[in-house]
Amino acid sequence: MAVLFLAPTESPSRWAAELRKHLPELDLRVWPDIGDPHDIEEALAWHPPAGVLGTLPNLGLVAALGAGVDHLFADPAFPLEVPVVRLVDPYMTAAMSEYVQLQVLRLHRHDIDYLAQQREEVWRERPQPNAAERRVGVLGLGNLGSDAAVRLRVTGFDVAGWSRRPRKLPGIQCHHGADGLAALLARSEILVCLLPLTPETAGILDRRLFAALPRGASLVNCGRGGHLVEADLVPALDGGQLSAAVLDVFQDEPLPPGHPFWRHPRIVVTPHAAAATHAPTAAAILAENLKRRRAGRPLLNRVDPTLYY
Amino acid sequence: MAVLFLAPTESPSRWAAELRKHLPELDLRVWPDIGDPHDIEEALAWHPPAGVLGTLPNLGLVAALGAGVDHLFADPAFPLEVPVVRLVDPYMTAAMSEYVQLQVLRLHRHDIDYLAQQREEVWRERPQPNAAERRVGVLGLGNLGSDAAVRLRVTGFDVAGWSRRPRKLPGIQCHHGADGLAALLARSEILVCLLPLTPETAGILDRRLFAALPRGASLVNCGRGGHLVEADLVPALDGGQLSAAVLDVFQDEPLPPGHPFWRHPRIVVTPHAAAATHAPTAAAILAENLKRRRAGRPLLNRVDPTLYY
Repeated sequence: MAVLFLAPTESPSRWAAELRKHLPELDLRVWPDIGDPHDIEEALAWHPPAGVLGTLPNLGLVAALGAGVDHLFADPAFPLEVPVVRLVDPYMTAAMSEYVQLQVLRLHRHDIDYLAQQREEVWRERPQPNAAERRVGVLGLGNLGSDAAVRLRVTGFDVAGWSRRPRKLPGIQCHHGADGLAALLARSEILVCLLPLTPETAGILDRRLFAALPRGASLVNCGRGGHLVEADLVPALDGGQLSAAVLDVFQDEPLPPGHPFWRHPRIVVTPHAAAATHAPTAAAILAENLKRRRAGRPLLNRVDPTLYY
Repeated sequence: MAVLFLAPTESPSRWAAELRKHLPELDLRVWPDIGDPHDIEEALAWHPPAGVLGTLPNLGLVAALGAGVDHLFADPAFPLEVPVVRLVDPYMTAAMSEYVQLQVLRLHRHDIDYLAQQREEVWRERPQPNAAERRVGVLGLGNLGSDAAVRLRVTGFDVAGWSRRPRKLPGIQCHHGADGLAALLARSEILVCLLPLTPETAGILDRRLFAALPRGASLVNCGRGGHLVEADLVPALDGGQLSAAVLDVFQDEPLPPGHPFWRHPRIVVTPHAAAATHAPTAAAILAENLKRRRAGRPLLNRVDPTLYY
């Protein structure tokens, strides 16, 4: 019984060391040196090369090394009958909420303008409402979205959220479904995207959605690059429908040199840094799911492959 | 009985309109058109011209239009026997805490580096601890400092504070006095100054204090410009003892053109915008103190002139 490590951007030795704290006997095979494919019963995957997972006859679990699983289902040969779990790690959730707080406060407090003023040596105070007078909308109320929404509320913002299914969160107006989306957008001066990337949500951040926001609204995308129709963003900013955007995720990562987002004065780019997987805490959670599978117990954070989350 | 408005940078008509909602009969005299000086029993002051307040024979109250009163006592002819109150307004306290959250999160999350990387089109993720692993120190635990400290703690930071007198705050290590200051500094990766400006605290942010911080610490000054020895800051940044500074207040405001802080790559300048006085809420608080004086009841937020706060 062996575990396949199929995450080309991650360090196998670092993960092996952390995982062995919980599973001392772990037989970890690092792609492409997998030995006998029949040995592989579990895979730890992050942006796996397409076609590999479908060739493992005894595969009984695929565990993602992050919160999203869109990269798994992007493989047309992904074995949909194999159980998939995603990583829900309070350490990463906290990191994401910090990022959201920073970026929403930045937009609320005119930070992009003040940074530009500093470059021009301009001393000019801008009118500033309190957070309680600022309406923030959060798209997606899963583990990440609900934590971010509640923490924004605690900071004082007037927060509403939207999800596919009805949700309840303390102090937060929760909308759902297609009608709920229109209501959420109409009131959101700052919109945060923390949706999963699914066939339904791909391209949701487009010209039509921007037009449904109040004029001059701003956007934080820390979901996936595929949520944003990149070609629609700069026209919305240059035309004034949007006043600013903070982007952590992109269609192509790393964001290619010369891409217009790098140099746009109303866009802040961060290099997919909102919430990195944190091996020391994640390893304990991954190990727990490996033990559960081996013992025939229910898995944590199992993904519904028809929903992509 | 008249109230003198002695705040050259503020709009008297805006304040008069807000104050009359609470004191419809208000006789507000706007400096220099004060009429008979004997009529003036109360003054609303913000950076008043020196010498004026000492010439009013019937003055019974000076109310500051902001949290600080250093600008009053800077007048050598200030009538020290007249009761002084400062403005403690939850609206401004919330604004200050938002500013502190934004700036501490900025420093914690390497925002200055990421903004610089964006200008160079560099995609590079930096190692990122969680807020729980980041030690923040708050100098000053009055209304503003204690609110900011508690909110930083709620956001997840490991927060300690320091004040002249002993204080207790939930979840926060509180230090006090000279020995307590050394202990606070030794553990503060990010230091926030929210002290009152007094003869004791003037120039406290100097080379010696910077040397007592962990190497590479960073600073947020939203107290007063007089807390910082400006000549000591750039050498501390260029030598690496400090890694960054966010400054909202300066020795001379507006910060003069050509001042080295404007262009320093490790300094963020904001134009004394952390927490502006908010006339609609402040007027109610000021009116309450005027009514209390007239009724001979105890004043709110009275200042001890020997302590400057």
